Amino acid sequence: MEIVRQIENLLGGDKVVYDEESLVRYGQDETEDFVFKPQVVVKPETVEDVSKLLQWCNANQVVITARGAGTGLSGASLPIHGGVCLSLERFTRILAIDEDNMQVTVESGVINEVLRNAVEAKGLFYPPDPASKGSCFIGGNVAHNSGGPKAVKYGVTKDYVLNLEVVLPNGEVIWTGADTVKNSTGYSLTQLMVGSEGTLGVITKVVLKLVAKPQHDLLMWANVDLATDACKAVSEIMRSGVVPSGMELMEKKGIDLACEALQLSNPLTPSSNAALLIEVDGNDLESLYAECESINGVLESHGITDVLFADSSSQKEAWWQIRRSIGEVVKHHSVYKEEDTVVKRSHLAELMYGVKEIGSRYGFESVCYGHAGDGNLHVNILKDSLTDEQWNGAHLEEGIREIFRLCKRLGGTISGEHGIGYVQKRYMNEVFSKTHLNLMRSIKKAFDPNNILNPGKIFD
Amino acid sequence: MEIVRQIENLLGGDKVVYDEESLVRYGQDETEDFVFKPQVVVKPETVEDVSKLLQWCNANQVVITARGAGTGLSGASLPIHGGVCLSLERFTRILAIDEDNMQVTVESGVINEVLRNAVEAKGLFYPPDPASKGSCFIGGNVAHNSGGPKAVKYGVTKDYVLNLEVVLPNGEVIWTGADTVKNSTGYSLTQLMVGSEGTLGVITKVVLKLVAKPQHDLLMWANVDLATDACKAVSEIMRSGVVPSGMELMEKKGIDLACEALQLSNPLTPSSNAALLIEVDGNDLESLYAECESINGVLESHGITDVLFADSSSQKEAWWQIRRSIGEVVKHHSVYKEEDTVVKRSHLAELMYGVKEIGSRYGFESVCYGHAGDGNLHVNILKDSLTDEQWNGAHLEEGIREIFRLCKRLGGTISGEHGIGYVQKRYMNEVFSKTHLNLMRSIKKAFDPNNILNPGKIFD
Repeated sequence: MEIVRQIENLLGGDKVVYDEESLVRYGQDETEDFVFKPQVVVKPETVEDVSKLLQWCNANQVVITARGAGTGLSGASLPIHGGVCLSLERFTRILAIDEDNMQVTVESGVINEVLRNAVEAKGLFYPPDPASKGSCFIGGNVAHNSGGPKAVKYGVTKDYVLNLEVVLPNGEVIWTGADTVKNSTGYSLTQLMVGSEGTLGVITKVVLKLVAKPQHDLLMWANVDLATDACKAVSEIMRSGVVPSGMELMEKKGIDLACEALQLSNPLTPSSNAALLIEVDGNDLESLYAECESINGVLESHGITDVLFADSSSQKEAWWQIRRSIGEVVKHHSVYKEEDTVVKRSHLAELMYGVKEIGSRYGFESVCYGHAGDGNLHVNILKDSLTDEQWNGAHLEEGIREIFRLCKRLGGTISGEHGIGYVQKRYMNEVFSKTHLNLMRSIKKAFDPNNILNPGKIFD
Repeated sequence: MEIVRQIENLLGGDKVVYDEESLVRYGQDETEDFVFKPQVVVKPETVEDVSKLLQWCNANQVVITARGAGTGLSGASLPIHGGVCLSLERFTRILAIDEDNMQVTVESGVINEVLRNAVEAKGLFYPPDPASKGSCFIGGNVAHNSGGPKAVKYGVTKDYVLNLEVVLPNGEVIWTGADTVKNSTGYSLTQLMVGSEGTLGVITKVVLKLVAKPQHDLLMWANVDLATDACKAVSEIMRSGVVPSGMELMEKKGIDLACEALQLSNPLTPSSNAALLIEVDGNDLESLYAECESINGVLESHGITDVLFADSSSQKEAWWQIRRSIGEVVKHHSVYKEEDTVVKRSHLAELMYGVKEIGSRYGFESVCYGHAGDGNLHVNILKDSLTDEQWNGAHLEEGIREIFRLCKRLGGTISGEHGIGYVQKRYMNEVFSKTHLNLMRSIKKAFDPNNILNPGKIFD
């Protein structure tokens, strides 16, 4: 192919891959069962490589889609129009851990957990920890404004990004901000890049704020008769003044599938339909025990009395593993559509109830779990026994629309942390007016007038 | 005037003011001694009023500049091209304090301190507290991404803004986001509005995240021989693991002027050239005493041994009043140019040293103070004995440029919390490339194609 030859000439053959197996592999991420093969996969090693490549694509009107670890759940990295897949997998260097200023500078292909471990060795802490932390890249986290269980106490990716090195579609390289916590110097292109899903520029370096690593954490597992009861308790725990570092909700089906797949003993009792996983962290162990007691008191007042405490780090790790693997094991059980619903925390029970009610009307089953403390509920709609026609048809789409309309009514929106990408863009009109979407399109056009960068994502 | 008559017809005469005294008053803010009179001052009462007004201005190509309390230090609300001054002073309603979700919804003309007091009565806390908190409006805080002393522990305005009601230049009203802590739904227009200084839209309502109110705070005043010694200690205090809720630096001249103006006893000893004001807050008083001890240890190791503890709330208030009033009293003493420098915290001593060195070469005196814990130093360059020619000339401008170049070299930028507005825009090219500035211009154009909204701010 002419494109392949030209890129090989530009960057060298060792950075270019186009065998069938690779094209299929890089043509998918973790979103449903989609495969959109690129024409070629390019693995640049330096920001200069990225710059040359974008410049070439821009001049030749070749579409190009940046890819992190391919763990996305909204299809943002799927090369839906073919063209070039730009993999950041060789951008793996941790460039500086600045202990004095509590900052870290990394290339965008560094794995979340690798970063976490590196800074923890210096007594520092990078809180955002998506379930895929063992494989997802920091660049992808920024591009999706990723959250994770710790967000309820520590916030999401946007709260930690100070500065970004970005290659613009014309090949120019800019730093979006400064390495400072305070910055009031014109429009924040840093924050505009956060959550832009690779449509405005390619993120090559990231400067992140860090915090001091809390020295202790405690973990509780609470079995609950009804998931909606759990939701109500969550809201009151937050109101009580305790801020847990994790407050996760899981429905029975997700827990059962996870325990089976991981061959772990299942903490859920037969009468329970859901569980809460609640973590507190800090430096003073006694205060943490007091916080757990106070949480326990709230749970009791909601009739939730079957509460376990993790008594070892392996126990903690096992419970977190159950939570983290639910998405994956549910997928193994059945292809699913992931809805990353988010509402005001106090409306979570209403959302949960509504999702099930809508499901029963439209004939789909769902497994729900997620970040209860943030009002962020992942709704996995199972394909199971639905036919391909039902799965892709207008009826199911209308059911999902109803869920999103409910989110909006409850003060929320259609994605809390997974982004819009390819699969949710059709629902954007549920939360944004035409004017609002056109503003987003104009911003896209300002950055990428030739529409070469990940076209067809977020909006058409 | 035709414009006045037409706006009176549109909104009613009681919302329109154009007497000379008002025009002069609304033609200035707290920036140097500038006066740019608008043709008319309009005081809308509802979002519909604002919408009608913007629509009319857009259709008639009349420039319009939104104004909060007029406490800005970069001239963002100065009507430099005349036209309409849109005052948000009647947007004073606190619409909802949502204790369950720890959020507050207010109109944009609510005074920062009024908001703080209202939520504190419910045990909640809104941390960003600019020195002008007694008069500045929340809308202006959002438009400038304001900080304040608490930022070192709690972050700045951008970290609290969840959702904004914005009137676009064509009169359309949008909500930029959702009332949720997590949101990954396309480009964040919420964050784009933060710090946009009224150039993209008029903010009419603001939804803010709140945190639980800490129950105790302790305040220390440390006298220091040299300001640069203080800077070094600050960096090490942060590294020690304690996160103060305030860490302020003040030079002698600012303290002396403030104490004189406020008729307060001056805590500064004759041999000291600066002081640090350090606050810790939290719920456990014993932990706070331990933190103060630990801070004291670091100070001692830097030879800072003259440390006072506030022993009453009136003592605390007096010390904070000294800090907060420095800007105002220095202005009373001499017109000044405010440079809102910000660097990596660990480079603060270098910045401080550099500012004085540059001042001595260029022949200007400065009073420095500010948020040492954030690397954010306010440099008040005094007009004092400089002639108007020197004050407005290329020589002084070059000196200021040198300061900003130094900021950039030290990982920082040209504004930490005051914004760019009218007076700093000429320096934007020190930190941004032409491409970068053109991206900002394109964003402006996408929102405001007729350039009616606060033209000539941030960039030309």
